[in-house]
Amino acid sequence: MSKPLILVSNDDGITSRGIRVLVGIMQKLGEVVVVAPDSPQSGMGHAITIGNTIRLDEEEIFEDVVAYKSSGTPADCVKLAKHYIFKDRKPDLVVSGINHGSNTSISVLYSGTMSAAIEGAIEGYPSIGFSLCDYSSKADFSHVEEFIERIAKQVLDHGMPKGVALNVNFPPKRNESLKGIKLCRQARAKWQEEFDERYDPNGRKYFWLAGNFVNFDKGEDNDEWAIANNYVSVVPCLFDMTAYHGITQMNEEWDWEE
Amino acid sequence: MSKPLILVSNDDGITSRGIRVLVGIMQKLGEVVVVAPDSPQSGMGHAITIGNTIRLDEEEIFEDVVAYKSSGTPADCVKLAKHYIFKDRKPDLVVSGINHGSNTSISVLYSGTMSAAIEGAIEGYPSIGFSLCDYSSKADFSHVEEFIERIAKQVLDHGMPKGVALNVNFPPKRNESLKGIKLCRQARAKWQEEFDERYDPNGRKYFWLAGNFVNFDKGEDNDEWAIANNYVSVVPCLFDMTAYHGITQMNEEWDWEE
Repeated sequence: MSKPLILVSNDDGITSRGIRVLVGIMQKLGEVVVVAPDSPQSGMGHAITIGNTIRLDEEEIFEDVVAYKSSGTPADCVKLAKHYIFKDRKPDLVVSGINHGSNTSISVLYSGTMSAAIEGAIEGYPSIGFSLCDYSSKADFSHVEEFIERIAKQVLDHGMPKGVALNVNFPPKRNESLKGIKLCRQARAKWQEEFDERYDPNGRKYFWLAGNFVNFDKGEDNDEWAIANNYVSVVPCLFDMTAYHGITQMNEEWDWEE
Repeated sequence: MSKPLILVSNDDGITSRGIRVLVGIMQKLGEVVVVAPDSPQSGMGHAITIGNTIRLDEEEIFEDVVAYKSSGTPADCVKLAKHYIFKDRKPDLVVSGINHGSNTSISVLYSGTMSAAIEGAIEGYPSIGFSLCDYSSKADFSHVEEFIERIAKQVLDHGMPKGVALNVNFPPKRNESLKGIKLCRQARAKWQEEFDERYDPNGRKYFWLAGNFVNFDKGEDNDEWAIANNYVSVVPCLFDMTAYHGITQMNEEWDWEE
C-alpha cells in the first residue's frame, strides 16, 4: 500500500513554528506536501483572492518535504494544491496549523487555520485544523504531538462524517498533563471588541481592533470548558450553515405577503 | 415610538450601486446609518483586521444619511458600528448588500456580504444579507426592491430565530416577474476552480483564480433551485458550525486511545 498523501497548510505562514511541528508529525504518517501562506494570515476567515493575482513558489524549507509558499489565503492554498499541484491525485488528509492561538468557539468563523480545513472538507477530503491556545510565537508544543498523531490516525482509519471538518484545540502547556480528548460543541461566546483610537503623524485618526473573549456558556460539553479543564477539544464543524429549525419556524410564523 | 435604527453595510464598497439602492429602501423603514468598506472586499469571507490599522471616516455620500467608510472588512464595519459609532444604542436591523453577484450555496462561506450579516447575528441583532445573482456593476435592481422591503418588515415585526442570519438571494432581472419567496436550505454545490497561469514582465509566474460553480443538488428545496426557478431564496444561516450528528457518530465509532 502506498503511503497516505497529506497536505499541510496554516494561517501563520510557512515559516511559523507551528507548521514545522505539524510537518514533523505528519512525516511519520505519510507523504507530506506543504502549501502555506508566505506571510501571516490570522483572522482571514474564509477569504479567497478575487480581483488580485496569486503567487505560488516552491520553497526548500522542510527536509524531505515538497513545500510551496503562496501570497494567497489559507483557502487559496488548498485550492492551489488541488487544482495545480496534485491535479489527478487526492490527498488522504488535509491538516492545518498548528495555530499559535485559540480557535475555539466563535473564533472558528474568523480563523484562517480552520478555513483551510473547511476548504478541504468542501472538496471531500478528511480535514483537521489544529490550534494551541497559546499566542506566543515561542509556545511549547511538546504536550500536543502525541494527540495530533492519534487524532490524525483516527481520521485516516475512519474517514470523516460527511460534510464535516474537525476543529481541534489544545490547552497551553501547564504543569498538569492533558486529561484526554473530548468531542465538544462550539461554546456560546463572542469577542467584546474595543477600538483603540490613535492619530497618525499627519493628525489623521486610525484604529486598532482589540478586545476580550467573553464566554456565556455554562455547559460542560463545549470547547471552552474542555480547554479550561485541560482536555483536548474536538469540534466537528459543518460547512452547511442552514438553520433547519429556522426554516420550520419561519414557515409557520412569518407571512411574506403582509 | 421612535423609528427603528438600521445599520447598512456591504462588501462591494460604499460607492457601489447595490448599497445605494439598499439605503434608499431602508430610509422608508427607519433611521439609517451606513458603515461600509472604502473599496471592494468581495470574497473576504469572515475576515477581520488583526495586526493592521483600520481607518474610519465620515463620508457625505447619501442624502440625509450618516455614513462612514472604512478600510476594514465587512465584519470590521459591523464591529466599528457597534463599539465606536452606536456605543449605547442597538440597531434594530443590520442589512448588508445588495451584493453585485450570487451568494447562494457554498458561496455563503466566501461572502463578505454575508459576513457582515453573520457578525450582526453574533451580536444579537436581526441581520440580513441581500445579493442579486447578476455580477454586472450596472445590474437592474428594480425587481427586488419590493421584496427587500417586505422581508425587512417581516424581520422588524417577528425578530429573528436565535443564532440566525438570513441569506437572501434574488434572480437576475428576467422577462418573467419573480414568483415569490422560498425558504430554502443551502444547496450542495461547490466551485470548480481553474488557475489561470501567467508570467509577469520579469518572467515570474503568477495566477488568477477562476472557475465554475458546480451544483450537485437535485432537490427542489434549496437556494440554487429557487433562483433557477425565479423565486427569491431565503436561507436562515447559523454561526454555530457544530455538526451535532458528527459528535454522536464519532463518540460511537472512534477510539481515541488506539
